[in-house]
Amino acid sequence: MTDFDHIKGLFHLPEGVIYLDGNSLGPLPQAAPARIASMVRDEWGDMLIRGWNKAGWMEQPGRVGDRIGRLIGAPPGTVVMGDTLSIKVYQALASALDIVPGRNVVLTDNGNFPSDIYMAEGLIRSLGAGHELRIVDPEAVEAAIDDRVAVVMLTEVDYRTGRRHDMANLTKIAHAAGAVCVWDLAHSAGAFPVDVLGAGADFAVGCTYKYLNGGPGAPAFIFVSPDHIDKVQPALSGWLGHEAPFAFDLDYRAGSGIERMRVGTPPVMALTALETSLDIWDQVDLADVRARSIELIDMFIAGVEAGCPSLTLASPRDASIRGSQVSFRCADGYAVMQALIDHGVIGDFRAPDIIRFGFTPLYIDANDVKSAVSILENIMTQRLWDQPRYHERQTVT
Amino acid sequence: MTDFDHIKGLFHLPEGVIYLDGNSLGPLPQAAPARIASMVRDEWGDMLIRGWNKAGWMEQPGRVGDRIGRLIGAPPGTVVMGDTLSIKVYQALASALDIVPGRNVVLTDNGNFPSDIYMAEGLIRSLGAGHELRIVDPEAVEAAIDDRVAVVMLTEVDYRTGRRHDMANLTKIAHAAGAVCVWDLAHSAGAFPVDVLGAGADFAVGCTYKYLNGGPGAPAFIFVSPDHIDKVQPALSGWLGHEAPFAFDLDYRAGSGIERMRVGTPPVMALTALETSLDIWDQVDLADVRARSIELIDMFIAGVEAGCPSLTLASPRDASIRGSQVSFRCADGYAVMQALIDHGVIGDFRAPDIIRFGFTPLYIDANDVKSAVSILENIMTQRLWDQPRYHERQTVT
Repeated sequence: MTDFDHIKGLFHLPEGVIYLDGNSLGPLPQAAPARIASMVRDEWGDMLIRGWNKAGWMEQPGRVGDRIGRLIGAPPGTVVMGDTLSIKVYQALASALDIVPGRNVVLTDNGNFPSDIYMAEGLIRSLGAGHELRIVDPEAVEAAIDDRVAVVMLTEVDYRTGRRHDMANLTKIAHAAGAVCVWDLAHSAGAFPVDVLGAGADFAVGCTYKYLNGGPGAPAFIFVSPDHIDKVQPALSGWLGHEAPFAFDLDYRAGSGIERMRVGTPPVMALTALETSLDIWDQVDLADVRARSIELIDMFIAGVEAGCPSLTLASPRDASIRGSQVSFRCADGYAVMQALIDHGVIGDFRAPDIIRFGFTPLYIDANDVKSAVSILENIMTQRLWDQPRYHERQTVT
Repeated sequence: MTDFDHIKGLFHLPEGVIYLDGNSLGPLPQAAPARIASMVRDEWGDMLIRGWNKAGWMEQPGRVGDRIGRLIGAPPGTVVMGDTLSIKVYQALASALDIVPGRNVVLTDNGNFPSDIYMAEGLIRSLGAGHELRIVDPEAVEAAIDDRVAVVMLTEVDYRTGRRHDMANLTKIAHAAGAVCVWDLAHSAGAFPVDVLGAGADFAVGCTYKYLNGGPGAPAFIFVSPDHIDKVQPALSGWLGHEAPFAFDLDYRAGSGIERMRVGTPPVMALTALETSLDIWDQVDLADVRARSIELIDMFIAGVEAGCPSLTLASPRDASIRGSQVSFRCADGYAVMQALIDHGVIGDFRAPDIIRFGFTPLYIDANDVKSAVSILENIMTQRLWDQPRYHERQTVT
């Protein structure tokens, strides 16, 4: 049984803040500053170039990948770290298209994160040759899987509403139709138990700065099914995916297994920060996280619906098709969120009218939920959001 | 006039080490640990998601890009940071091919860094349609520029020999033949004055962990000529290159100017480390760096040739066609380099027989060069490298 009181103490949370935005950027593990400082001074500073061997920097992307793998149901040697999520989406999609010759449709939904869609648009443009991106409503994905579809590319949890696809079922349907699946786990990894192997996922990608608490701009991960990895000729074929990077051959030969999905020099400092969060994850059972997340969200929904009748639930009420976040539609959502933040409750706003709250049982408990509900209720009933300063737009919201 | 004695004190250099490998991984700026610690605690820890606005994380890739721009002759607003160098090579090459329709040859040389060549191979494979990668000897590039060449893609300084192309001249020849140029400045930026605008470079890319001292895995930069940037439809079209990333539209519309070459969420911690090195660069005149680098290298060559007759110079003797590194061919190069490292002189080995030394006047002075020569001479004359432990291969050399 996960000891959530103990776990909460392993994060730095600023005084007076209830942080319901860990689905966007997770908080700082208490152990991170010392570990990062040590990497900077003892490894970069004192080992210099020797750090690649002595400190194990070169193997870090696979070593950390295996630790992520444990959280998403991926066996050792099937996950590797690097780049940003957008780059990993591109790599996965390009490889997926490669292994389904003769078909040319990429199917996604309009609840997919826009960057995934943009990367697919770009790839399709460069491939030319009749490829097509088909974008449907999330509810229409299943019916849209036909014999022209090469790849079903989806984010499991909708970033706006928290609506969750049935990964295992859609993957089964896609396979039956002769297609392969690329799953983006940005809002899944660390949010609830994921079983990429059990679900038969062909490719999965995700970021590590949300539920996995790796810090701003922490690198992405990519999983490739053991059924495919030896057949995959990676797009973005960089030297660290080469069979022998330090032979400096002129011809690219894909490295063994998942290592071939590496591209360039790994971001050592960011991976080191992430490792301090993974040390915490080692003490956590994701089934406990899931159970507690549902409790907290159900409590939050009940509280908000009782106290703030002008807000409309935008997330599924049924926890089984919901991720670890909840959204409400709110006419003045931007200003309401600014007022909330000003009163110590940090969530976020997604245009045009979504206010969104992430529930992360690692450091959010029932008392936080009660306080957040009461602050939101106060802001709504007293129209505290209706002040000019809360309407001034900032770049990132 | 650059005060090199002062500058040397701004770096942490381990006791007993003469570091001639700053062309592979630059040393730690003394100011970096505190600045990184502050970013970690005060920004990530206390601001959490608000750091994107309050700490300026979102604009950091352009802000840092402008500071790199000053070192490579690029005007403000033409350089942006992100990803790894391999990814930036891909982006530059794809965009370059886009703006030269009707031609299908990418010309490079076999002294280009293999990852650049691998990325080009991968891009060409995915483009299909008769594209071709033509690889010639460095000396044969000029003659190989014909009317089928769309893009001349070169690393200005050969990573093995330090041989330096004439960027301005080759660019002029390429343009006259109707081609565009992609220059990789991995071994140029921070090594000597670079003038991308004056040379008419169409695209330039580089990494920041070598001469620019950004730390292991620090992000890359990309420059796009003001003549092209508004016409470039970026490959790897991620959300942060979108005109309005936070509108979350489903259609990609390229952002304004160089911002469109951004892809995913920026690596904040790594960019922050890099900024502490750029603070040092603000106090440095690259013309002084160049003059001192030539002095140091000429002194090293003279010393090695006098004391180690079995080593053959593999770099140009003429400083005007040499970067800031020097290489010697050495039959037992791997073991010799291991012995050197063991005796406090850190350079590196590049297969099959190159021992390579980078000269970085920011923290290497004439005394270091004299000591390094004397240690190398001692190792060679006494055959100190001929011990089994120096022959044991490690992953990274």
